[in-house]
Amino acid sequence: MKARCSEKPDLVIRNVQVFNTAFRGFYPADVYLLNGRFYYVDIKKEHLIEASETVEGHDRYMIPGLIDIHMHIESSMMTPAVMARRLAECGVTTIVAEPHEMANVNGIRGIQDMIGNGKEAPIDIFYGIPSCVPATRPDLETTGGIIDAASMTELIKDPAVVCVGEVMNYREIIKDNDLEISRFLNELSEKDPRYTVEGHCPALKDEELAKFIYLGIDSDHTEHDIEELKQRFFQGMYVELQEKMLKREVIDFIDKHSLYDHFGFVTDDVMADTLMEKGHLDHVIRLAIGLGMSPEQAIYHATCTNARRMKLTDRGQISPGKLADFSLLTDLRGVVIDATYKNGRCIYRRDEKTASIQGSQLSEKCDTFSKDYFYSVKVPPVKPDRFVLKTDHSDTSQVLAEVMEVSDGSTKTTRSLVWLPVEEGIVRWQHSGCLLTAVFERYGKSGRVGYGLVSGDFMKEGAVATTYAHDHHNLVVVGSNEEDMALAANSVISAQGGICVTKDGVIKAFLPLPIGGILSDLDADEVGKKLKEVRDALIAQGYRHYNPIMSLCTLSLLASPAIKISDFGLIDVTAGEPVPLIREELRL
Amino acid sequence: MKARCSEKPDLVIRNVQVFNTAFRGFYPADVYLLNGRFYYVDIKKEHLIEASETVEGHDRYMIPGLIDIHMHIESSMMTPAVMARRLAECGVTTIVAEPHEMANVNGIRGIQDMIGNGKEAPIDIFYGIPSCVPATRPDLETTGGIIDAASMTELIKDPAVVCVGEVMNYREIIKDNDLEISRFLNELSEKDPRYTVEGHCPALKDEELAKFIYLGIDSDHTEHDIEELKQRFFQGMYVELQEKMLKREVIDFIDKHSLYDHFGFVTDDVMADTLMEKGHLDHVIRLAIGLGMSPEQAIYHATCTNARRMKLTDRGQISPGKLADFSLLTDLRGVVIDATYKNGRCIYRRDEKTASIQGSQLSEKCDTFSKDYFYSVKVPPVKPDRFVLKTDHSDTSQVLAEVMEVSDGSTKTTRSLVWLPVEEGIVRWQHSGCLLTAVFERYGKSGRVGYGLVSGDFMKEGAVATTYAHDHHNLVVVGSNEEDMALAANSVISAQGGICVTKDGVIKAFLPLPIGGILSDLDADEVGKKLKEVRDALIAQGYRHYNPIMSLCTLSLLASPAIKISDFGLIDVTAGEPVPLIREELRL
Repeated sequence: MKARCSEKPDLVIRNVQVFNTAFRGFYPADVYLLNGRFYYVDIKKEHLIEASETVEGHDRYMIPGLIDIHMHIESSMMTPAVMARRLAECGVTTIVAEPHEMANVNGIRGIQDMIGNGKEAPIDIFYGIPSCVPATRPDLETTGGIIDAASMTELIKDPAVVCVGEVMNYREIIKDNDLEISRFLNELSEKDPRYTVEGHCPALKDEELAKFIYLGIDSDHTEHDIEELKQRFFQGMYVELQEKMLKREVIDFIDKHSLYDHFGFVTDDVMADTLMEKGHLDHVIRLAIGLGMSPEQAIYHATCTNARRMKLTDRGQISPGKLADFSLLTDLRGVVIDATYKNGRCIYRRDEKTASIQGSQLSEKCDTFSKDYFYSVKVPPVKPDRFVLKTDHSDTSQVLAEVMEVSDGSTKTTRSLVWLPVEEGIVRWQHSGCLLTAVFERYGKSGRVGYGLVSGDFMKEGAVATTYAHDHHNLVVVGSNEEDMALAANSVISAQGGICVTKDGVIKAFLPLPIGGILSDLDADEVGKKLKEVRDALIAQGYRHYNPIMSLCTLSLLASPAIKISDFGLIDVTAGEPVPLIREELRL
Repeated sequence: MKARCSEKPDLVIRNVQVFNTAFRGFYPADVYLLNGRFYYVDIKKEHLIEASETVEGHDRYMIPGLIDIHMHIESSMMTPAVMARRLAECGVTTIVAEPHEMANVNGIRGIQDMIGNGKEAPIDIFYGIPSCVPATRPDLETTGGIIDAASMTELIKDPAVVCVGEVMNYREIIKDNDLEISRFLNELSEKDPRYTVEGHCPALKDEELAKFIYLGIDSDHTEHDIEELKQRFFQGMYVELQEKMLKREVIDFIDKHSLYDHFGFVTDDVMADTLMEKGHLDHVIRLAIGLGMSPEQAIYHATCTNARRMKLTDRGQISPGKLADFSLLTDLRGVVIDATYKNGRCIYRRDEKTASIQGSQLSEKCDTFSKDYFYSVKVPPVKPDRFVLKTDHSDTSQVLAEVMEVSDGSTKTTRSLVWLPVEEGIVRWQHSGCLLTAVFERYGKSGRVGYGLVSGDFMKEGAVATTYAHDHHNLVVVGSNEEDMALAANSVISAQGGICVTKDGVIKAFLPLPIGGILSDLDADEVGKKLKEVRDALIAQGYRHYNPIMSLCTLSLLASPAIKISDFGLIDVTAGEPVPLIREELRL
């Protein structure tokens, strides 16, 4: 129950420079708290009010707890509870997470178990309903779960759910109104016409963009040029800016047109090693400040506007009645978090990091995930001969094969064709500059294996296997030779999930992901460290991409162009259909 | 059901200067509508999109339908349906009304019947739950209904209800947590911690203001000096500016500190004749423009910020997917409304006013109010001797009497004392400069009559009787002689409600208010005309107040200082207790 306002405040933080949202500035003040909420921001200090406890602020900056309204916990490969502890260090006290990765693994139960695990977190975790699971269709990719309209209707009743998560099939939904998500949105527009629906629509413009927004999907967080950005603001979208959108021209455009109340900062995907080395929403704020935005303005867009977008009107500013979520900072421009409070309780102190954060128990991290999550990779041990490509005819001398061409700077691939020699019915891809890719269906459904070839700015030697593979998260194995591929695959299978890099018969780096094959049961820094080792190993083996892990894990993402791979083999993403690996055979 | 976005637009408004919310500016465009919502704002016009119907915009300004989030329909003395028709002429397409007047007359049923009647309106009427009915306590004023915590819990379930209406007992609620509204707010903070709660807290400052906001009440629309205004913004309130707050220093303060996204314009109380002569929220916008605010900025605060405050995120801007609520204007600075559309349908055209607005049927206006609303003044005909003041002792020669002193410019009164002669046990107040006031309990409860005296900037001759009397709405009669008082009272009783001005045995002006004694069954302009006659008659009879109707009807408002009147007689508002009319008797 909310305290009576006639009670004595529980806590006062004296002598801070408090951030004021309406005035977007810092003011010297004493800030009183009562029963987990702010009680009074006293800038007059004419007479001291008695409080049960006093914390000396030492003239530090006091900012509202940061609010990230578009992010995926699974990208950190941590459980919600573990990630939340790390977020407290970054000053983040509220997130709206979209758990479509776990939904691909385990359907509606996957989402419910993410919600359940998040309840043990020291920060508030709200959720968006995943709206595109599977990312495409069951005849193109096998997933562990499917979220249909009925599941969405069920999920929306959970008080932790505050929006429909990013609607990603933006090309289809503006044409085809018989999708599960279309049916659900139609129903929703009747029952709750003001419900928040988040979008994802890279490059969409003009009337097509309007069609998307017309469906009630009025935010976007993908990358744009200035014309696309302008159209989004103009057609009434709330723009969510993540790191890759932070360019000086974007900041200048917003400033020139005073678009301040129509956008906020988000993180989308932050991997464990980035989280360890750079931080989270605090990192995005630092980047914005570096690009010339004032710290005050940057904080506003990581708190006030985001809270408003999600109708979380009980937080996002330091003012009476709002949840007492805040951080104390010595260095404002550097966004160095000294301490973070949630509901008036200190959940992080930099000088006591070991005690408050590292001391978490394994049980807290994954207890809410039942035993079956730890047995989700239903693939028997793999022998090297599973990575032998055979032709239909023994007298074939050459084949023209489809190749996924990877380019640095993008998760999109391009299609290319290559002639490969064939000996005794076996395709000799090994010295062609291509690597073999095999996708093993791992949910115990069809046992299907899809094959493909990859080249370009990809790794050159050894092999890698991963069950963290957007969005279907089957077991993806890529490599230059059968033995290393089998070793990587079997390591992941035996750990029941993970990312393993091998070379010359040796495991070079390995991050086990035993929870649903996509999450670790380790602490944040351990996950960060192991992921960094995986990244370094991939780079050492020749991966030339700016983010090799992202590049590797999206080789299987059928929502992104142009040719990707699933347990059904190569998929032409644009056409939405499978492509035969071997296009032509030259026979003797 | 929301239309599919692949359908042909229903309507296009070609060649308009469309208001864009994010950019706060006008842009030449064609605006497409589909199924009651905006479909596309085309500023490129590279190729025409086919629509079922075309309206030529003639380069007029197209602005979003105005949204008034703090107002009382009963102040217009019209039914919701009738007032809504008038509002369409003013460009207002959404209101959030707070029906505490009708709640005082008929409790929860009064509110439900207001909601029911509003459903026939051409605009959207949402409601705030009245939180202070009665305004004070049942032992200080008799009302027709009481809204307790249980009633509020019931009302909040209605989909038309979007907030808790202004919490007005701001001095008590910060001290006493056992009020009905305190109990309800406590319950609400558990069940729906982000529910919108509107406030009313004139002059409240510093820690006391914080205590009020701490309870979750975070808006205010009362009048303030700059220091009070600053505190409201600083402590996180949404500020609602009405006409009386519109001063150049206020506009300058907002501009200087860029407080644009934290306030909106509202009307609160607009009477029928003002509505006829000056308009509604359009009038407030005109005033703001007159004080130097740009029309673009002024429109923003009568649409976007207000929609956001009430979480009405399906409206308030001209962009895809939002409700197609808008007006077309030739004269932007003058805010001259040529036409208004709601859900894509034209509900008002200035050049066809007679046909579209005046053609309303009586049945639409008041059918939803059942027969008992037309028999709400349960007072038998009054004889002149009811206005004779007697003393307890026949040998009294003079009495010292309490007087409510009315001052121009305010609805507050001050206390004064006057010696009056007594003849044969009868107080001769007639030539003292005071008028007699009698309040007849009219709900068929106690039949109590309270007496008082009034002087100052009040009327001087004749009499007036009204059942429109904030907040208890009993029958209030004030006059200079018994005969005119009886005539006025009996006219109102026989019409079962209204405001009647008499002089020299003649009815000078009369606005019948037969619905619950506070609403007319006439059309907007007729109500306006008759109310104007009442106002003119009061002025002709010596009323010197800038708003004599407001002054008259708040003589009974126990929520406003310092001495007011109810069926219990004179009430010391500050002390919250009755005051004897006769303080002292001088006996022979």
